[in-house]
Amino acid sequence: MVPSSLLKRLFILSLGPGQNALITPQVHQALSEVSDLFGYGPYIKRLSLPASVTLHPSDNREELHRARQALDMAASGKSVGVVSSGDAGIFAMASTVFEALEKGPKDWQEVTIEVMPGISAMLAVAARVGAPLGHDFCAISLSDNLKPWPIIEKRLIAAAQAGFVLSLYNPISKARPWQLGQAFETLRHTLPGTVPIIIATAVYRQEEHIRITSLSEVRAEWADMRSLVIVGSPYTKTIPSHNAIPWVYTPRFIPS
Amino acid sequence: MVPSSLLKRLFILSLGPGQNALITPQVHQALSEVSDLFGYGPYIKRLSLPASVTLHPSDNREELHRARQALDMAASGKSVGVVSSGDAGIFAMASTVFEALEKGPKDWQEVTIEVMPGISAMLAVAARVGAPLGHDFCAISLSDNLKPWPIIEKRLIAAAQAGFVLSLYNPISKARPWQLGQAFETLRHTLPGTVPIIIATAVYRQEEHIRITSLSEVRAEWADMRSLVIVGSPYTKTIPSHNAIPWVYTPRFIPS
Repeated sequence: MVPSSLLKRLFILSLGPGQNALITPQVHQALSEVSDLFGYGPYIKRLSLPASVTLHPSDNREELHRARQALDMAASGKSVGVVSSGDAGIFAMASTVFEALEKGPKDWQEVTIEVMPGISAMLAVAARVGAPLGHDFCAISLSDNLKPWPIIEKRLIAAAQAGFVLSLYNPISKARPWQLGQAFETLRHTLPGTVPIIIATAVYRQEEHIRITSLSEVRAEWADMRSLVIVGSPYTKTIPSHNAIPWVYTPRFIPS
Repeated sequence: MVPSSLLKRLFILSLGPGQNALITPQVHQALSEVSDLFGYGPYIKRLSLPASVTLHPSDNREELHRARQALDMAASGKSVGVVSSGDAGIFAMASTVFEALEKGPKDWQEVTIEVMPGISAMLAVAARVGAPLGHDFCAISLSDNLKPWPIIEKRLIAAAQAGFVLSLYNPISKARPWQLGQAFETLRHTLPGTVPIIIATAVYRQEEHIRITSLSEVRAEWADMRSLVIVGSPYTKTIPSHNAIPWVYTPRFIPS
C-alpha cells in the first residue's frame, strides 16, 4: 500500500548538469518514491529508476501542457515527479508548474508540492573554470519566445553598465540563430573588449567543451543549444592554469 | 599509500544550505579522500568525516589567510579540502582561493585544483517558496566590507529598474546593521510597494523561518546573518498554498 503521505504529491526535481554525482541525495530519494515521472524525453530516459515508475516523456517545448498533466495526475491521488535539468527553479519547470497551478482548477490546490533544488548550469560552468561568479552577477535568458527582444537588450545594457557578471541562458538555437550575436554586439558598446567570455557546452558530460575568449574575439557560432555563456565584468580576471584553459575568477573586492 | 593522483590537490567543496541530503555525491566522495580540511569552524565540525582527516577550523573572517594555508599545504604534497556553505563559487571561498593563487608563489601553480558546485542559498530559498527565480534575476552581496556602498546602491537601482528579481546575500550583521534597511529604502523609490519580498532564515535547517511580505511592509530587523533576502520584480506573483506561507513565483513570460 502506498503511504498516505505520498498521495496527491508533486515533486519538482532538479537533475543538475547531467551526471549522477551531481544529483543531490534528496532528489535521488524522491525519484525512488514517485509512481509517475514527467520530463523531456532524453533527460528521464537516462535516469536509473525502479521498474515500477511510469515514464511520461515529452518534447522540450510542451512545458505548460506537461505541468498541467502532472498536476492533474497528482490531484487524482498519485505521487508524481516532474524533472528539469539544472535547477528546476531557474528558467525551468518550477515556474511553469506554479503558472499552471494558478490558472488551474481548485482541486489542484490540494496537491502537496515540493521543489527540490539542483546544480544550475551557471554553477556547474563556474566550478569548471574557477570562480567567475565570485562577485555580483545576473542571469538572463536570451529566449525571445518568452519576452520581447527589446527587454532583453535593456537588461543586458543595464547589468553590464552596473558592473555585474552576466550568465546567459538559452543563448542560441536553430529557431533563435541571431540573438547571441546581437547580444555580444550590444555588449561591445558597453564593456571593454578585453572582458573574459566563457562559452561552455555540455559541462560535466563526455562531450564537454569549454572555450575562454574575450568580448572582442568571441563569435556566436561557438555556442550551441547545450551551451551556457558567461560574460565577465571589467573586474573579472584570467590566470594561468595547467589545464587546457586558464582559470577565470571575479575578485570579491572592489577598491574604493 | 596515497595514490599519486591525490597528491598536490586542492578540492574547493560546496556544502549547500546545511543538510546532508543537499550535498552532492561528488562532494561527499571528495570529503572522504582529503587528508586535511579547512573551513569555518561550525561548518566543518558538523560533517561526518573519516577519523583520518585533520580539521583546520577557522573564524569566518579569515578567508584569504585560510586560502593561502590550504594552497601551501596542497603544494607540499597533500590532498586538501576547503569548504564553503552554499555554493563555493558564489560570494564564497572559490574566488578567495584564486585570488590567493594569483598573488602567491609560483609553486602553488603545480597544485591541481577542482571546484565542486553546490546548492547556493538563493536556490535553496527559491525551492522552499516556489519559483521566485523563474525569470531573469541578479545576485548582489550587501557587504560593504568588500566594495563601496555607492556601488551597491547603483547596482540595486539598475537591476530593479531593468526588471530583474534580486537575491541579496549577506544582508545584515552586527557589524553591518543599516545596509539592508537602506537597500529597502532605495528600492522603494524604484519599485512598486506591492512587489513580494522573501526573508528566509536558516533554510533547510531545524530553525528555518521564512516570511513572505511586500516592499512597503518589510522591515530589515526581520533578517539576521543567517538570512537570504529575495526582492521580487513587478511580475512576481504570490498564490495561495496550504503551507504556512503562500507560493511565490516569477512567470517565464513577459507579454509584448
